Amino acid sequence: GELAASFAALPVFPLFDTAYFIISVLYLKYEPGAVEMSRKSPFASWLCAMLHCFGSYILADLLLGEAPIGHFSHNSSVILATAVWYLIFFCPMNLFYKCVSFLPVKLIFVAMKEVVRVRKIAAGVHHAHHLYHHGWFVMMATGWVKGSGVALMSNFEQLLRGVWKPETNEILHMSFPTKASLYGTVLFTLQQTHWLPISEANLIFFFTMFMIVCKVFMTATHSHASPFAPLENLVCPVLFGSVSTGYPSHYHDHHGASHEVSHPPPPPPPAKSKEELNEGTRKRKAKKAE
Amino acid sequence: GELAASFAALPVFPLFDTAYFIISVLYLKYEPGAVEMSRKSPFASWLCAMLHCFGSYILADLLLGEAPIGHFSHNSSVILATAVWYLIFFCPMNLFYKCVSFLPVKLIFVAMKEVVRVRKIAAGVHHAHHLYHHGWFVMMATGWVKGSGVALMSNFEQLLRGVWKPETNEILHMSFPTKASLYGTVLFTLQQTHWLPISEANLIFFFTMFMIVCKVFMTATHSHASPFAPLENLVCPVLFGSVSTGYPSHYHDHHGASHEVSHPPPPPPPAKSKEELNEGTRKRKAKKAE
Amino acid sequence: GELAASFAALPVFPLFDTAYFIISVLYLKYEPGAVEMSRKSPFASWLCAMLHCFGSYILADLLLGEAPIGHFSHNSSVILATAVWYLIFFCPMNLFYKCVSFLPVKLIFVAMKEVVRVRKIAAGVHHAHHLYHHGWFVMMATGWVKGSGVALMSNFEQLLRGVWKPETNEILHMSFPTKASLYGTVLFTLQQTHWLPISEANLIFFFTMFMIVCKVFMTATHSHASPFAPLENLVCPVLFGSVSTGYPSHYHDHHGASHEVSHPPPPPPPAKSKEELNEGTRKRKAKKAE
Repeated sequence: GELAASFAALPVFPLFDTAYFIISVLYLKYEPGAVEMSRKSPFASWLCAMLHCFGSYILADLLLGEAPIGHFSHNSSVILATAVWYLIFFCPMNLFYKCVSFLPVKLIFVAMKEVVRVRKIAAGVHHAHHLYHHGWFVMMATGWVKGSGVALMSNFEQLLRGVWKPETNEILHMSFPTKASLYGTVLFTLQQTHWLPISEANLIFFFTMFMIVCKVFMTATHSHASPFAPLENLVCPVLFGSVSTGYPSHYHDHHGASHEVSHPPPPPPPAKSKEELNEGTRKRKAKKAE
Repeated sequence: GELAASFAALPVFPLFDTAYFIISVLYLKYEPGAVEMSRKSPFASWLCAMLHCFGSYILADLLLGEAPIGHFSHNSSVILATAVWYLIFFCPMNLFYKCVSFLPVKLIFVAMKEVVRVRKIAAGVHHAHHLYHHGWFVMMATGWVKGSGVALMSNFEQLLRGVWKPETNEILHMSFPTKASLYGTVLFTLQQTHWLPISEANLIFFFTMFMIVCKVFMTATHSHASPFAPLENLVCPVLFGSVSTGYPSHYHDHHGASHEVSHPPPPPPPAKSKEELNEGTRKRKAKKAE
Repeated sequence: GELAASFAALPVFPLFDTAYFIISVLYLKYEPGAVEMSRKSPFASWLCAMLHCFGSYILADLLLGEAPIGHFSHNSSVILATAVWYLIFFCPMNLFYKCVSFLPVKLIFVAMKEVVRVRKIAAGVHHAHHLYHHGWFVMMATGWVKGSGVALMSNFEQLLRGVWKPETNEILHMSFPTKASLYGTVLFTLQQTHWLPISEANLIFFFTMFMIVCKVFMTATHSHASPFAPLENLVCPVLFGSVSTGYPSHYHDHHGASHEVSHPPPPPPPAKSKEELNEGTRKRKAKKAE
């Protein structure tokens, strides 16, 4: 009760925001060609980093007909994100990158990023509720884009980097954060419209704990297994007539060097488990690389 | 006079809107890969269906700087469209799809969809006139996107489905509904600015009758012949120096199974009639399929 | 002082705007396939011309959450731009095109276009300052898109023409006008926030003179050498660890017939001069054509 209330009142800027920026720009650096782009076209690299750091605000403003550039009027946030981008890409001897990539440190930042993500979902639902009192779909959409951030515009963020992969996108093949944000925004909308008998602070607290546990585990073990799979494999065949085999998007769950091969995973028989799917995908990638 | 007035005052929700949703989602189902997408990524399929049902409102709001998600605050419309999507894609034994595809029933729905289309064009011109009293181009643009709907964003609706066909778009190769909406919005703008001496109710009535006759004929006979071709073949050589050979876009005039082959039609010599063009296109498709 | 003030007060419409439209539509005509498109799909050609003429207003309105179609309520501007498009594409015996392509005449129009460009940057910074008093990044972004215009949306303008080149864009490989607009908007923002001790009229005057000299020289000599290269080659290795080899985008610096071959230039060793780079690119294009 009180723990949840004080947790929900934690100031997000600057510490948690910095962690959000660090993890976001880190994932940008993992993308193939990102380092080369930072040397050849530093301005484009900076703009990509801004999309990664502030994509949620841009998308929410686009949805609600507000100025997409509005959040960039917060100069301190932009300067902080710029500093994070510069340190991660241009620090002498790559010191900063090595520090934040050190797994225990990285896990702390990942946890802090999830705190910001859940707060953004709640704020998005709240803001949309203020504009459209009974617009449940509007509330859910706003919370979703606030939580997913740049992932939902991944095709166009890649286009800025000169990459174009139309065969997949975050809505067709949802990564874990995008899917979790979708479920989270439904919960927060139900709470806002009083269908879910729980206080906002409690919901923020428990959903954040869930997200932290999942993301820290997935980051530490390099796992792609979705915690939603058991529940979905129960519901989807009933509602939609077959197993909804959602492939983990390469976008969020990417760690390691820049050897990404782009090809949509071929549809496997539904009986295979997700671990076997990943093994299969890795083997196909190795074959393709040969 | 009075017939036209009562016709223009007909409530569009829920019967005519339901017909609009049914035909729109039907055309989505005809698209290659749509059924597979509904099984594998039902959320993406639902979002596509929403684009098909509400694309006109989204585009008009984007043009006028309003919230593109604004129309989704009408919960009953969204729930109705969702129900139509679910029944068309997931009804046991495909019962609903078979019912609405039965040609006489489908022709009734096609006629009702044209009623909604023309009303949307009129409403769009009216709304833009309210915002920009003398913005004739703004009025024409708003009416046009209200009438054409999702077709004008077909490239991006396809991108959501993982399909990317940049070689063509609805503006480069206009389908009949898009072209008819363009001519219709010019008429409605001329009427709104008092250059066309006809009442709005009469214009709505006569233009709707024209659209119903054309679309029902084209749907019943699977014809691609544009009723505008004779007039255009008179005017275009004078104004633009050659025959404006507008190819029917695959997007709107699509009936039948999912065997669409995407390739821009090669430019034929202007003397060929449109029927010969279609025969030529069918033969080329058969060759490509071999 | 007074010269600068009267220069900054020059009415831009209709003479300078006409020159802006003429040069913009001229560059559209240079694009491969543009003439063919004007014959086959005149409406799409007209829409492209409108994007070229009013792209800056559309982008600035999109950034600031205003109606992107707002500027089209200025009927006289739209009609003037339409007349320029029609004369350049459809004048009998191509008279108008031959007149404006005559190099001395073209250089005058190029100079007048730069006057409009710089005024747009100043107006954009001013407008953004009015909305966000301390939003420095917002001011810089608005001025930048006002100066660069359609170039920043080149990928989508090409998509309208049925062309898709995702491997490059104006932000990744900046052309001279886009880069100059970026530097200009920084100067104007510094002036607006009183960090640069110069009056707005003087800044407009001197920056316009700089732009006129550069663009007239580059147009007359068909040169692609960027005047910023010496300064950038000093600063970039220090800040960004290597030479920022910005390739001139094909978009702005295009003259001559329609033989464009699209391929991203392969990264050359930094020691090569820009002239050798262009020679290398021309040779590679010749090889590819064979």
